[in-house]
Amino acid sequence: ALAQLLEGMHPADIADLLEQLDPEDRRELLRMWGSELEGEVLSELDEGLREEVIAALSPEALGEAVRELETDDVVDLVEDLEEEQREEILAALPADDRAAVEQSLAYPEGTAGRLMQREFVSVPEHWTVGDAIDYLRAAEELPEDFYHVILVDPRMRPTGYVPLGRILANRRDVPLKDLRDESFRTIHVLQDVEDVAYVFNHYHLISAPVVDDDGRLTGVVTIDDAMAVLDEEAEEDILRLAGVGDESLSDRISEIAKARFVWLFVNLLTAILASLVIDYFSEAIEAAVALAVLMPIMASMGGNAGTQSMTVAVRALATRDLTMSNAWRVIQREVAVGALNGAAFGLIMAVVAGVWFGMPMLPVVVASAMVLTLVSAALGGILIPLALDRLGVDPALASGPFVTTVTDLVSFGAFLGLASWILL
Amino acid sequence: ALAQLLEGMHPADIADLLEQLDPEDRRELLRMWGSELEGEVLSELDEGLREEVIAALSPEALGEAVRELETDDVVDLVEDLEEEQREEILAALPADDRAAVEQSLAYPEGTAGRLMQREFVSVPEHWTVGDAIDYLRAAEELPEDFYHVILVDPRMRPTGYVPLGRILANRRDVPLKDLRDESFRTIHVLQDVEDVAYVFNHYHLISAPVVDDDGRLTGVVTIDDAMAVLDEEAEEDILRLAGVGDESLSDRISEIAKARFVWLFVNLLTAILASLVIDYFSEAIEAAVALAVLMPIMASMGGNAGTQSMTVAVRALATRDLTMSNAWRVIQREVAVGALNGAAFGLIMAVVAGVWFGMPMLPVVVASAMVLTLVSAALGGILIPLALDRLGVDPALASGPFVTTVTDLVSFGAFLGLASWILL
Ligand SMILES: [Mg+2]
Ligand SMILES: [Mg+2]
Ligand SMILES: [Mg+2]
Ligand SMILES: [Mg+2]
Ligand SMILES: [Mg+2]
Ligand SMILES: [Mg+2]
Ligand SMILES: [Mg+2]
Ligand SMILES: [Mg+2]
Ligand SMILES: [Mg+2]
Ligand SMILES: [Mg+2]
Ligand SMILES: [Mg+2]
Ligand SMILES: [Mg+2]
Ligand SMILES: [Mg+2]
Repeated sequence: ALAQLLEGMHPADIADLLEQLDPEDRRELLRMWGSELEGEVLSELDEGLREEVIAALSPEALGEAVRELETDDVVDLVEDLEEEQREEILAALPADDRAAVEQSLAYPEGTAGRLMQREFVSVPEHWTVGDAIDYLRAAEELPEDFYHVILVDPRMRPTGYVPLGRILANRRDVPLKDLRDESFRTIHVLQDVEDVAYVFNHYHLISAPVVDDDGRLTGVVTIDDAMAVLDEEAEEDILRLAGVGDESLSDRISEIAKARFVWLFVNLLTAILASLVIDYFSEAIEAAVALAVLMPIMASMGGNAGTQSMTVAVRALATRDLTMSNAWRVIQREVAVGALNGAAFGLIMAVVAGVWFGMPMLPVVVASAMVLTLVSAALGGILIPLALDRLGVDPALASGPFVTTVTDLVSFGAFLGLASWILL
Repeated sequence: ALAQLLEGMHPADIADLLEQLDPEDRRELLRMWGSELEGEVLSELDEGLREEVIAALSPEALGEAVRELETDDVVDLVEDLEEEQREEILAALPADDRAAVEQSLAYPEGTAGRLMQREFVSVPEHWTVGDAIDYLRAAEELPEDFYHVILVDPRMRPTGYVPLGRILANRRDVPLKDLRDESFRTIHVLQDVEDVAYVFNHYHLISAPVVDDDGRLTGVVTIDDAMAVLDEEAEEDILRLAGVGDESLSDRISEIAKARFVWLFVNLLTAILASLVIDYFSEAIEAAVALAVLMPIMASMGGNAGTQSMTVAVRALATRDLTMSNAWRVIQREVAVGALNGAAFGLIMAVVAGVWFGMPMLPVVVASAMVLTLVSAALGGILIPLALDRLGVDPALASGPFVTTVTDLVSFGAFLGLASWILL
């Protein structure tokens, strides 16, 4: 019954099921049904679980599973595995697939060379529609999915591609050259996969030939894999902005706690720094405990406004909407927004503080500190990601602690400093 | 020279250029070159800028531009426009395209009916490869891009599809039925576009037929449009988590300030709530100003730990990795992580507080409060998004203020409460 149920399911759904089961049930399921597991399930599986599932399969079941996969999926599967499991999988492949996979693995992680599939259809550029149809009908093995016939010159350099729909819609004697699509663009084998995903989304590509240093065709990236990269990069940014690493729900508790500890520790250091500022003004607080009551409001507003600016900047850098050519305008805009909201909240908080504590000059202190806090939050929120990006550091990863430091120091410093000066 | 330069550029790059120019230069450019503007540039353009650019075009230039577009791109273009501009664009279309666009617009925003293109290739399910080739060669107008020939029954209900590569690779007498791809699945015309994007990414679809209530073929969604939705939804989540609406770099300062004000105002209310807790314990602070120095550290650690848990939960809900079936396990995991890191930071802060202030019982207070804070941050961070999701509220939009409220109240309350009880 179980076997029948799983039989009818899509590999991506079986992978999700395995991810959702608790570890014991998962082991049980694999013990009973592991020999039937398709290769696609392995490549759909969360990276954190692959080792466990592969270890649970018999060598025969594993070999059968991986032989079904396209080369790009094998590369994705083995690149993060331990040497031993990697060898076991490579050994199960036919010699030509193994060579293709090993060539891809020779390119650095995160490059188009790792993402591309080695299966593609290329034909001489002088062929006609009829030539292409005859060739395809006679071909012994074609890629699982392909969307273009790539035209190559005698040295295997791609010179254009023809969408399959155009080949089908034209008479046999039409030269393929006349049917080339203008969307054609090649990708270098060492290009960063994040750039590849951007290019696919930006230019609405469906597949793109990958070329080596000599411009020779070495593979093809297809949009489904580019889409997965785009999704992963967005996920990475979301998680990194929150101070969470590449964790997934199936990771072990100790790993997760350790990864999150690092970020919280950095945050602790910046918080202690802010506390030193408060300590410096402890006399003012002893004189007026209202300051201790109000100061977390200032810090909270600064932190949130800074996060707003920072997140907009990080995202706009990722989508390349924020560039060096419009950075100056965006900085001005952020400062203006900070000043406007600083004035608005300064006014609101002046009223709140006045009514609450009835100290004569307190509203003036609160309002001025709020403007200073929100303007510097805006400045920090935009300048820090820009600077990190310039320095080649991922702004999604590192902006948070710096921005918080700025907003904490300014909010506590401005508020308590102005209070000591004006009130005492 | 300008015209030549722009001539050679991809519409997506021209759109980016228009977005990056400052408003005056943009007007200037449109005045000089607007008549040459392609329709694709309009559909690549930021939604916030479309009205401005459309208004700058002459009616003739606009009409010519939009007649080039596929119906799905026209729908995307006009759906957010004012009545007047919408009418102007619809009036420029040939009658059949206009009817197709109006039918799509009749479906609610954010549904597959708005995303689909009306151009597709469907043939009777009993046809052969040869029939399909003859039909495609004779067709007067084919979709710009298509990847499958859709098989339909006599009542226009899709029963499968054949990838173009398989039609090309098979002999004329092979029935199309034998070449159907197993990835085939249909999408209902009212399905949420976010679900559509998920389905494309999850099942690696390249295109999918859209059907109405009677199961009849009404359009096709292609992967490039699904990829754009996936990207937009991720962007929406990133920005919403930070309390930023659908803003883009080309929005006006007043609009941006207003949108961000709303979030900051909600945050102000929760911050004032936290301050009431502090006010309640003001005697303790007067007795020991060390409490005022340390309490922002507790709040900051709570806020950050809560954001970690919350972001993981929001993302896992969006990718459907977190479901009702594994929620309980994830909750336990978060609490365990919170307890581990609570213990670790409790220890660290006990030492810091002891060395810094030398008050005998202060380390005990700090350590206990830290454990309570990080455990409740974990609980709030996971339970609040789960609850909002259950209630049909977007957890990315609304979780932040609730989680902050929990972490603020617990961190200030536990720390100052324990301090009053143990220290004084
Ligand atoms: Mg999955
Ligand atoms: Mg997943
Ligand atoms: Mg595949
Ligand atoms: Mg991988
Ligand atoms: Mg692939
Ligand atoms: Mg990356
Ligand atoms: Mg990134
Ligand atoms: Mg753009
Ligand atoms: Mg298009
Ligand atoms: Mg739209
Ligand atoms: Mg489209
Ligand atoms: Mg949405
Ligand atoms: Mg969403």
